Amino acid sequence: MRVTVRRDEAILAAVGKIIAERRRGLGFSQEDLAEEAGLHRTYVGSVERGERNVSLINLAKIAGALRIPLSRLLDGLD
Amino acid sequence: MRVTVRRDEAILAAVGKIIAERRRGLGFSQEDLAEEAGLHRTYVGSVERGERNVSLINLAKIAGALRIPLSRLLDGLD
Repeated sequence: MRVTVRRDEAILAAVGKIIAERRRGLGFSQEDLAEEAGLHRTYVGSVERGERNVSLINLAKIAGALRIPLSRLLDGLD
Repeated sequence: MRVTVRRDEAILAAVGKIIAERRRGLGFSQEDLAEEAGLHRTYVGSVERGERNVSLINLAKIAGALRIPLSRLLDGLD
Protein backbone atom coordinates (compact mmCIF):
# COMPACT_ATOMS: atom_id res chain seq x y z
CA MET A 1 0.00 0.00 0.00
CA ARG A 2 1.25 3.43 -0.85
CA VAL A 3 0.41 4.85 2.56
CA THR A 4 2.43 2.14 4.28
CA VAL A 5 5.37 2.60 1.96
CA ARG A 6 5.41 6.32 2.70
CA ARG A 7 5.31 5.67 6.44
CA ASP A 8 8.14 3.16 6.13
CA GLU A 9 10.24 5.64 4.19
CA ALA A 10 9.55 8.30 6.80
CA ILE A 11 10.79 6.04 9.61
CA LEU A 12 13.99 5.16 7.77
CA ALA A 13 14.60 8.82 6.93
CA ALA A 14 13.96 9.91 10.53
CA VAL A 15 16.35 7.34 11.99
CA GLY A 16 18.96 8.22 9.38
CA LYS A 17 18.68 11.87 10.35
CA ILE A 18 19.06 11.09 14.07
CA ILE A 19 22.18 9.02 13.31
CA ALA A 20 23.72 11.74 11.13
CA GLU A 21 23.04 14.47 13.70
CA ARG A 22 24.48 12.46 16.55
CA ARG A 23 27.51 11.52 14.44
CA ARG A 24 28.19 15.17 13.60
CA GLY A 25 27.69 16.13 17.24
CA LEU A 26 30.52 13.77 18.11
CA GLY A 27 32.69 15.27 15.37
CA PHE A 28 32.75 11.92 13.54
CA SER A 29 32.96 11.56 9.78
CA GLN A 30 30.95 8.78 8.13
CA GLU A 31 34.26 6.92 7.88
CA ASP A 32 34.80 7.30 11.63
CA LEU A 33 31.33 6.00 12.42
CA ALA A 34 31.68 3.12 9.98
CA GLU A 35 35.00 2.09 11.47
CA GLU A 36 33.71 2.33 15.05
CA ALA A 37 30.61 0.30 14.16
CA GLY A 38 32.44 -2.27 12.05
CA LEU A 39 30.36 -1.38 8.99
CA HIS A 40 31.21 -0.05 5.54
CA ARG A 41 31.26 3.70 4.94
CA THR A 42 28.94 3.53 1.95
CA TYR A 43 26.50 1.46 4.01
CA VAL A 44 26.51 4.06 6.79
CA GLY A 45 25.90 6.78 4.21
CA SER A 46 22.90 4.95 2.79
CA VAL A 47 21.47 4.39 6.29
CA GLU A 48 21.82 8.11 7.04
CA ARG A 49 19.96 8.90 3.81
CA GLY A 50 17.14 6.54 4.79
CA GLU A 51 17.84 4.24 1.87
CA ARG A 52 18.32 1.06 3.91
CA ASN A 53 15.89 -0.98 5.96
CA VAL A 54 18.60 -1.35 8.57
CA SER A 55 18.57 -4.44 10.77
CA LEU A 56 18.41 -4.52 14.54
CA ILE A 57 21.98 -5.81 14.79
CA ASN A 58 23.35 -3.02 12.65
CA LEU A 59 21.29 -0.45 14.57
CA ALA A 60 22.87 -1.79 17.76
CA LYS A 61 26.36 -1.47 16.23
CA ILE A 62 25.63 2.11 15.18
CA ALA A 63 24.19 3.03 18.59
CA GLY A 64 27.27 1.58 20.26
CA ALA A 65 29.57 3.55 17.98
CA LEU A 66 27.56 6.71 18.75
CA ARG A 67 27.73 5.96 22.51
CA ILE A 68 23.97 6.10 23.00
CA PRO A 69 21.40 3.49 24.03
CA LEU A 70 19.68 1.78 21.14
CA SER A 71 16.32 3.16 22.25
CA ARG A 72 17.65 6.73 21.87
CA LEU A 73 18.07 6.18 18.13
CA LEU A 74 14.35 5.57 17.87
CA ASP A 75 13.15 8.14 20.36
CA GLY A 76 10.15 10.07 19.19
CA LEU A 77 9.27 7.58 16.48
CA ASP A 78 6.28 5.32 16.92
CA MET B 1 34.19 -12.68 16.29
CA ARG B 2 32.55 -15.02 18.73
CA VAL B 3 32.04 -12.29 21.32
CA THR B 4 30.19 -10.10 18.82
CA VAL B 5 28.01 -12.97 17.65
CA ARG B 6 27.02 -13.71 21.24
CA ARG B 7 26.17 -10.06 21.85
CA ASP B 8 24.11 -9.97 18.65
CA GLU B 9 22.22 -13.07 19.69
CA ALA B 10 21.58 -11.57 23.12
CA ILE B 11 20.07 -8.42 21.59
CA LEU B 12 17.77 -10.40 19.30
CA ALA B 13 16.72 -12.65 22.18
CA ALA B 14 16.06 -9.68 24.48
CA VAL B 15 13.92 -7.86 21.93
CA GLY B 16 12.05 -11.06 21.16
CA LYS B 17 11.32 -11.50 24.84
CA ILE B 18 10.05 -7.92 25.19
CA ILE B 19 7.76 -8.45 22.19
CA ALA B 20 6.39 -11.75 23.52
CA GLU B 21 5.77 -10.31 27.00
CA ARG B 22 3.99 -7.27 25.66
CA ARG B 23 1.95 -9.42 23.28
CA ARG B 24 0.81 -11.70 26.12
CA GLY B 25 0.06 -8.66 28.27
CA LEU B 26 -2.39 -7.53 25.61
CA GLY B 27 -3.93 -11.00 25.47
CA PHE B 28 -2.79 -11.43 21.86
CA SER B 29 -1.85 -14.73 20.28
CA GLN B 30 1.05 -14.78 17.83
CA GLU B 31 -1.61 -14.95 15.12
CA ASP B 32 -3.27 -11.80 16.47
CA LEU B 33 0.03 -9.92 16.55
CA ALA B 34 0.97 -11.11 13.08
CA GLU B 35 -2.37 -10.03 11.65
CA GLU B 36 -2.23 -6.62 13.37
CA ALA B 37 1.33 -6.06 12.15
CA GLY B 38 0.72 -7.36 8.63
CA LEU B 39 3.38 -10.05 9.07
CA HIS B 40 3.31 -13.85 8.94
CA ARG B 41 2.68 -15.81 12.14
CA THR B 42 5.75 -18.00 11.71
CA TYR B 43 7.85 -14.88 11.18
CA VAL B 44 6.53 -13.33 14.41
CA GLY B 45 7.32 -16.58 16.23
CA SER B 46 10.88 -16.58 14.99
CA VAL B 47 11.34 -12.92 16.00
CA GLU B 48 10.07 -13.71 19.50
CA ARG B 49 12.57 -16.56 19.75
CA GLY B 50 15.40 -14.22 18.71
CA GLU B 51 16.03 -16.14 15.51
CA ARG B 52 15.65 -13.19 13.14
CA ASN B 53 17.73 -10.09 12.63
CA VAL B 54 14.51 -8.12 12.34
CA SER B 55 14.52 -4.95 10.24
CA LEU B 56 13.61 -1.48 11.41
CA ILE B 57 10.44 -1.47 9.28
CA ASN B 58 9.22 -4.74 10.76
CA LEU B 59 10.09 -3.56 14.27
CA ALA B 60 7.96 -0.48 13.60
CA LYS B 61 5.07 -2.67 12.42
CA ILE B 62 5.36 -4.84 15.54
CA ALA B 63 5.54 -1.82 17.85
CA GLY B 64 2.45 -0.36 16.19
CA ALA B 65 0.56 -3.62 16.58
CA LEU B 66 1.60 -3.71 20.26
CA ARG B 67 0.51 -0.06 20.73
CA ILE B 68 3.86 1.07 22.07
CA PRO B 69 6.50 3.49 20.77
CA LEU B 70 9.28 1.86 18.81
CA SER B 71 11.84 3.00 21.38
CA ARG B 72 10.01 1.04 24.10
CA LEU B 73 10.78 -2.22 22.31
CA LEU B 74 14.47 -1.48 22.76
CA ASP B 75 14.36 0.03 26.21
CA GLY B 76 17.10 -1.19 28.48
CA LEU B 77 19.22 -2.51 25.62
CA ASP B 78 22.36 -0.67 24.70
